[in-house]
Formats: sequence, C-alpha cells, structure tokens
Amino acid sequence: MKRIDSVKNEQVKGWKKLHTKKGRDKAGRFLIEGFHLVEEALKAKFHIEVILMTEQTVLPLTWEVNENDIIIVSPQVLKEISETETPQGIAAVCAIPAPPSMTTLSGQFLLIDRVQDPGNIGTMIRTADAAGMTGVVLGEGSVDLFNSKVIRASQGSIFHMPVIRGSLIEWVEKLKERNIPVFGTSLTEASSYTAIEPQPAFALIVGNEGEGVQSELLEGSDQNIYIPIYGQAESLNVAVATGILLYYLKG
Amino acid sequence: MKRIDSVKNEQVKGWKKLHTKKGRDKAGRFLIEGFHLVEEALKAKFHIEVILMTEQTVLPLTWEVNENDIIIVSPQVLKEISETETPQGIAAVCAIPAPPSMTTLSGQFLLIDRVQDPGNIGTMIRTADAAGMTGVVLGEGSVDLFNSKVIRASQGSIFHMPVIRGSLIEWVEKLKERNIPVFGTSLTEASSYTAIEPQPAFALIVGNEGEGVQSELLEGSDQNIYIPIYGQAESLNVAVATGILLYYLKG
Repeated sequence: MKRIDSVKNEQVKGWKKLHTKKGRDKAGRFLIEGFHLVEEALKAKFHIEVILMTEQTVLPLTWEVNENDIIIVSPQVLKEISETETPQGIAAVCAIPAPPSMTTLSGQFLLIDRVQDPGNIGTMIRTADAAGMTGVVLGEGSVDLFNSKVIRASQGSIFHMPVIRGSLIEWVEKLKERNIPVFGTSLTEASSYTAIEPQPAFALIVGNEGEGVQSELLEGSDQNIYIPIYGQAESLNVAVATGILLYYLKG
Repeated sequence: MKRIDSVKNEQVKGWKKLHTKKGRDKAGRFLIEGFHLVEEALKAKFHIEVILMTEQTVLPLTWEVNENDIIIVSPQVLKEISETETPQGIAAVCAIPAPPSMTTLSGQFLLIDRVQDPGNIGTMIRTADAAGMTGVVLGEGSVDLFNSKVIRASQGSIFHMPVIRGSLIEWVEKLKERNIPVFGTSLTEASSYTAIEPQPAFALIVGNEGEGVQSELLEGSDQNIYIPIYGQAESLNVAVATGILLYYLKG
C-alpha cells in the first residue's frame, strides 16, 4: 500500500487545495471526512478516488474497498488535510460528479435561493432527501455544494439526492411550462401555508437567511406562502421552515 | 464613561471566564454579542449589567441605555472576550435570570433530552418561540443554555421564551398528572405523527442527535410518534424534526 508521511508531500499540498471552492473546481474533486460519510459515499457507489487513513485505522469488514485505492498517511498528514478539530482517522478524495440530468422534470422540488450558511444548505438537502423530494436546485449565490460543512450537515444525503446548480429564474419558467405549481416563501403578499392543499407535484423556493427569496422569483411564482409566527421570534431558521413546508406540501 | 484598554485588566479576565459553563455558573452571568442580541435583551427588559463597546460603535437612537451601564473598550479587549471570528463592536454582560416558574402548568411544551449541539438547542428554542409554545424544559445532559452558540442560534428567543432546566422524568410525571398528553419521539414502537390529532395542550419530547429520547422517557410517555422518511436519509436533524412536529401538533 502506498504511504505518505510528510505534510510537505506534493499530493498532500494538492489535497489541501480542495478546502477552497476554487481548488475544488479546478481539480474536479472534493474531500470528505469520517467513517459515516465515506461509508455513505461507498454505498451510493460514488466515485471515490482515494481513501486516506492512518495505520491505526480499522476499516469496517463490510466495506468493499480495493487496496490500491488506499493511501496510508501519518496522523500529521491527516490533520493537515482535515477541516474538523478532531479528525476520525479517515478521509477520502471524491470526484465531483457530472450534474444530474432532469429530463423527466416531474415530481417535487426544493429550490434554494442564495442561502449562505453551509450548515443550513446541508441540513436542507438532508431534509429534502428525508421528505422524498425528486431533486434540489441550488441557485446562483448560494454557498458551494462541495463545501465540507455542507457535506457534513447533509449527513451523506449529498450522495443520494440529485442536486442541480443552475439559474432559479430559468427553473421556475421550466417548471411552470410543465404545469408544476411553484410556491415562493415570503412574509408579505402571501398566504399561510395551511391555506394550500398538499400537492403531488410542486416546487418550493426558500431563500437567503436575512433577505428571503429575491423579488424576481416571488413575482414569477404561482403563489407565495408563509409560516405563521405565534410567539415573539421574528422568523424561523430556513432549514426548519423548509422541513415544515416540505412535509406539509408532501401531504 | 468608564474605559478599559488593556486585555490584562482584571474585569476583562473576569468576562473571559464567562466562556465556560463553570465560569458562568460561578458568576451568575453570561455574555452576549452583536447588535441584534443586545437589542433583543433590551426589548425583553432583560437585566443587562454592562454594555461593552468600542469608541467607533454607534448605538441605535431607539435604544434606551443608561450611560453608566456602558464601558468603552479597545478593539483588542472586545476581541479578547468575543467568541465569534468577526466581533461586531458590541457585547454585553447579562445576569442569569431566576428560573421561570411554571405554576399554571397548562399549555404546550417542548422537552429537550440530552441534545448536544448548541446550534440545535438554540434553533429549537427559536422554533418553540415561533410556534407559540408555553415553555421549554431543558433536561439534564443537554448543552448549557447560556453557551454563546445556543444564544446566537436562538436569535434572541432565549430572552422571550421561558426555558426551565430540570429533570424530564419528573416533568413527564407532573404533566401527566395534569392530563396533558406527552408525546415521545422514537423510530420504533411509534405511530406516524399524522395519526395524532393536533392538540390544544401537549408536551413533545425530542432527544439526543445520535441516540434519540432515552427509553425511560419513552416508556413514561402517553404515545410515541415518528416522522416518516420517504427517501434515503437515515433521519432528520433534531431541530428540523422539532419544527415539523410542533407546527403539526399546534394545528
């Protein structure tokens, strides 16, 4: 098995570049960390280029891994490429997949408009997966899909859920052409979500933590909805709001 | 106005101790940071002992603050006591309030069992506030209520929402004595939440990120419920699940 001990190794330097969006886009690769995420990637038959682990790491017997795809690294090297405070002794380099195609374009969709917090994006992808959505569309201006915090908060759902990056304006048009109702979320000129019936096919647009969904999208939607606030909180966290609305609309 | 420039000042050292639970419990005080949280504390007439701000900080005109309650500090001092990467030029020391009393004990309650992530706890308190809950009971083994990340994620709801720290076992008994139905959350021996009718009074127990609600509480509840997973995610984030269930049970 190949072995790398020095943090000055050129490959190690290359992996560290995957911490930034620029580095990931250039290399067409991203990093994942920890047993749970590597296992989810394996189960989903995701293209794992190499598994990095220390000599002490024991792989679960159920994992089908080719020895040639493993590099043994020193704890120092693992720490160098890790973005968590307590690395779990295992990481992997994955290829960024080709964008999923959505040729059928029917079903239930979550559209994410300029959400900034990677934990929120990851949690929303996990929630869309749990709610059985057909796909997620990540609009321009949202945080990068392969950001390590997005992947971690998705708890592996990023490997199961088709996530498309694209222009939400174009997506709303395409969905409406196919007679899929598009619901924006807004506190003004909107109905309480309970005024809507659950839907076999729909698209829900949720937006930026501070500003919400951009007005151009709200104007293009079929109807805008809000979640009533009964207490003194000003709003709900966007991932929590997404969960309430997806499970309600799903019916 | 009083002024502190040196990070070696004894008061500064005292405030830094509020970063730990031990320090907060000993001093009976906690720290908040940023305009939004200080404003929420002021609006809620919370006991703010002192506001710490730099010379450059401009207070909003609407704030009613006594000059004697302000200390001007150097950016170095503010950075020293801050727990965020980009301090906003303002912080405050608040007194830990006396636990809210729940003499009426009727209404809608969220019971939190050993949740570990401070962001989750804060988001759950914010969600309970938005959903108009009567109170939140934070069981033993959950992360500390006055942890700065809990306060930040609560977006100020910690100042509005009665949050009691106590034994959940005792609480479940008390609630049942008053004929308030108690719902546990569990993936086994449970019904889908949609099988339950919305309730004018109820208590919902949500649990630890990995282990869920402890079995003693599940055995003591009136009924246990789960949220169906339609996709390949193993579970929902606990704060998202809390939102779905509170808004459903609220009706």
